[in-house]
Amino acid sequence: MSDYFIESIKLHQNLKGKIGTYNKTKVETMEDLSLVYSPGVAGPCLEIKQKPERAYDLTMKANTVAIVSDGSAVLGLGNIGPLAAIPVMEGKAMLFKKFADINAFPICLNTEDVEEIIQTVKNIAPVFGGINLEDISAPRCFEIEDRLQQIGIPVFHDDQHGTAIVTLAGIINSCKAVNKELSELNIVINGAGAAGMAIAKIMRCVNQNPDMCTPVKNIIVCDSKGIISSERNDLTPAKKELLGFTNSDNVSGSLQEALKFSDVFVGVSKGNILTEDDIKRMHKNPIIFALANPIPEISPELALKAGAAIVATGRSDYPNQVNNLLVFPGIFKAALAKRATQITSKMKIAAAIAIASMVENPSQNKIIPHSLDEGIVDIVNRAVQQVI
Amino acid sequence: MSDYFIESIKLHQNLKGKIGTYNKTKVETMEDLSLVYSPGVAGPCLEIKQKPERAYDLTMKANTVAIVSDGSAVLGLGNIGPLAAIPVMEGKAMLFKKFADINAFPICLNTEDVEEIIQTVKNIAPVFGGINLEDISAPRCFEIEDRLQQIGIPVFHDDQHGTAIVTLAGIINSCKAVNKELSELNIVINGAGAAGMAIAKIMRCVNQNPDMCTPVKNIIVCDSKGIISSERNDLTPAKKELLGFTNSDNVSGSLQEALKFSDVFVGVSKGNILTEDDIKRMHKNPIIFALANPIPEISPELALKAGAAIVATGRSDYPNQVNNLLVFPGIFKAALAKRATQITSKMKIAAAIAIASMVENPSQNKIIPHSLDEGIVDIVNRAVQQVI
Repeated sequence: MSDYFIESIKLHQNLKGKIGTYNKTKVETMEDLSLVYSPGVAGPCLEIKQKPERAYDLTMKANTVAIVSDGSAVLGLGNIGPLAAIPVMEGKAMLFKKFADINAFPICLNTEDVEEIIQTVKNIAPVFGGINLEDISAPRCFEIEDRLQQIGIPVFHDDQHGTAIVTLAGIINSCKAVNKELSELNIVINGAGAAGMAIAKIMRCVNQNPDMCTPVKNIIVCDSKGIISSERNDLTPAKKELLGFTNSDNVSGSLQEALKFSDVFVGVSKGNILTEDDIKRMHKNPIIFALANPIPEISPELALKAGAAIVATGRSDYPNQVNNLLVFPGIFKAALAKRATQITSKMKIAAAIAIASMVENPSQNKIIPHSLDEGIVDIVNRAVQQVI
Repeated sequence: MSDYFIESIKLHQNLKGKIGTYNKTKVETMEDLSLVYSPGVAGPCLEIKQKPERAYDLTMKANTVAIVSDGSAVLGLGNIGPLAAIPVMEGKAMLFKKFADINAFPICLNTEDVEEIIQTVKNIAPVFGGINLEDISAPRCFEIEDRLQQIGIPVFHDDQHGTAIVTLAGIINSCKAVNKELSELNIVINGAGAAGMAIAKIMRCVNQNPDMCTPVKNIIVCDSKGIISSERNDLTPAKKELLGFTNSDNVSGSLQEALKFSDVFVGVSKGNILTEDDIKRMHKNPIIFALANPIPEISPELALKAGAAIVATGRSDYPNQVNNLLVFPGIFKAALAKRATQITSKMKIAAAIAIASMVENPSQNKIIPHSLDEGIVDIVNRAVQQVI
C-alpha cells in the first residue's frame, strides 16, 4: 500500500469525518429557541408555503449542493459501493467549501438501479440548490443526468463535464501555443465512458456555439474495440448518438488508424496504451492529453521524445494537470447565484474559455492554470454568470 | 402575524440557512489535496471496501444523522410540504449540533408516498449513523418507521417517541409529587395521532419491562369519535392494534365517559377541548398533560382552578414544558456511541427514567426539567448507553 494511502487512513481515522455541520447563530436562551425553532419558525415556514421561491432566501437551499454517488466508478478503483465511496464524497464536499464556500453534503446511494437513483434524487431535491453527480459508471450516468435535467435545480455530472471543460480549456490554449486553429483540429478521443462522451459532446457544442468558440474540424471517438463508426454493430445507444456528430468521414479501424488523421489525442482510457510510434503517426506538433490516472496512456517523457508539442495529464506531478477542481466550484457558484435550473452547454463553454484565459502566454509547460492558482473560482463564476 | 413570526423571518432572511458545513482539516497545498482527496483518499476507500464497519472510524457516518420529513405534519401548521418544512428541519439540526454535537442534515422529501419514502431513506442511509423522522403525518409515520427498523441504523420518529418519553418522565414525577403509584394509574390519552399512539405504546412497554418501571393499571385512548373500543367499526389498523393493550374493560363512549375512570389526562389533540367540569369528573388529584400547541386542551389556570394537582403543557411560558429537546440529543448520542441498530423500548424507558431523575423533589411546578437545564444530554446519554 502506498505511503499516501497509509497517511490518508491515519488522517481519516483521526478526523472521523472530514466535514461537519455548524450553527450560524446561537441557541442559548428560550428566546433564541423561539426564533430558530418553535414557535417562531412557523413564520418562515408559512412564508415559503405561500411563495415557494422564498426558500432561496430563508433556508440553506440557495447555497447547498448534494454530492450524489452510488460508488460504482470511484477514482480508478471501480465499483467499491456507497460506503467505501464516502471518503471521496467528503473530500469533494471539502473542496466545494474551501474553494466556493458552498455547503456540500455527501449522499451515497445504496442502489445502482437507474430508476431508483433518479427517484431518490428527485425526492431529496427540496433542500438543495444543485446536484453534483459523482463517480457513477457509464452508461447509466448519461441517462441519470439527462432525466434529472427537468427537476428545477442544476444537475451536473462532474466526471463527465468537469473533465470535458478543463480539456477544452487546455485544447484552446494548446492551439495558441502551437499556432494551430481550433477550426483545423482533428481530435481523437480514446475512451467512450463518462469523460470521453462528454469531451466529444462539448466539442460538438463548440460547433453549435460559433459565437463563443471556433468549431473543430473533426472528432473521432475510439473505444476498446476501435473507432466508433456506422460499420460497428455493437454500439450502445449512447455510442450510437456519437455517430451524429463525430467521424464525419466514417472511417473504421483501430485507434492507430484514427491517429493518422489527428492533431489531438485525448485519452480517457487506461495506462500505457499509446506508443511513440502512435504519436509519430499523428499530424505535425501533436497535442497529447493522456488523462488516465494514475498511469497515463503514455508518459509525458516518452510523448515529448516522440515529438508531442504539448502533453497534459491528470497528474499533479507533471505540468498541465487536467483537474476538475478548476471547474466545479466556479460553475456551481455561478449556477447557484443566478438560480440557474440547468448547467447548459453555453455555461460549460464559458467556463472553459475563462479557465483558458487564466494562462497569459500558453506554452508547452503551461496550457492549463494550476489547480490552486488564485482567483480561478471568481473568474469562472463571473464568466459563467454572464451567459445565464 | 405574530411578532415572533416577523422577527424569525428577518433572522432567517439574514442567515440564508441556519446551518452550514465546515472542513475539519485544511486544504491549502497539493499535499493536503493528496491526503483528503485523490490519490490518497483511495486508502480509506479500499479499507472500507474490505471492512465495511470501518466506515464508522474513517468517515462522518458515526456522528451524522438525517432529519427526514415530507412536510406533511409540521408543527401545528399541517401539511405545508417539503420546501416550507426546511426551516424546521434546519432548526432541528441546530439543536442536534448545539446539544449533542451531532452533525444533522435536513432531508426534505418531495413525496408523501410511503413506499417511496421508505425506499429513499434506505437508499440514502450509507452516510448516516441514524435517521430522525420528523413531522410525518399519521398513520403513514407508523408504517414508515416500522419498516425502516431493519436497515441497520437506528430510525426514530421524534414526534412519536420524543413526546412519549418526556410524557412518561413527567408522569413518573407526577406520581411522586401527588403520592400515587404508577401501578394504580388510569390514563386517558386524547388523540390517536403520532404522539398519542406512541404514548400509549410506551405505557404498554412499561408493562413489558417490569424490571425498569412499574406497569400502569389501565390506558384508554380516545380519538375525535370517542373511546377506542372493540365496539367501534371505523378503526384504522393502527388504532385496532391499540385494542390489544388498552381499554382492558372495553368501555365505550365519549372522552367524558373515559375521564370518569382516570387519574391522568394526556391531550395530544387540539386546543380548548377540556372543561373544568371534565377535570372534576376525574379521580382525586388529577394529573393533566395538555400538550396541544400553541393552545393547550385547557389552560393551566383553569385546570388548576378545577382541581388539577399537576399541569404540564407544550409551552415554554408555563411550568412543566414537555419538550422533545430533552430526549433526542441524548438518545441519539447514546445510539451513535454504541452503534445501536435500533432505538428499543428499553432505551426509550431508560431515557424517560433518566429525565425524571433530573428533578430532585418533584412538585406541582416542577415535574419535568427545564429544556435548557445543564447536563440533561449527558445523563440521558449515559442512562441509555447502559441498556444498549
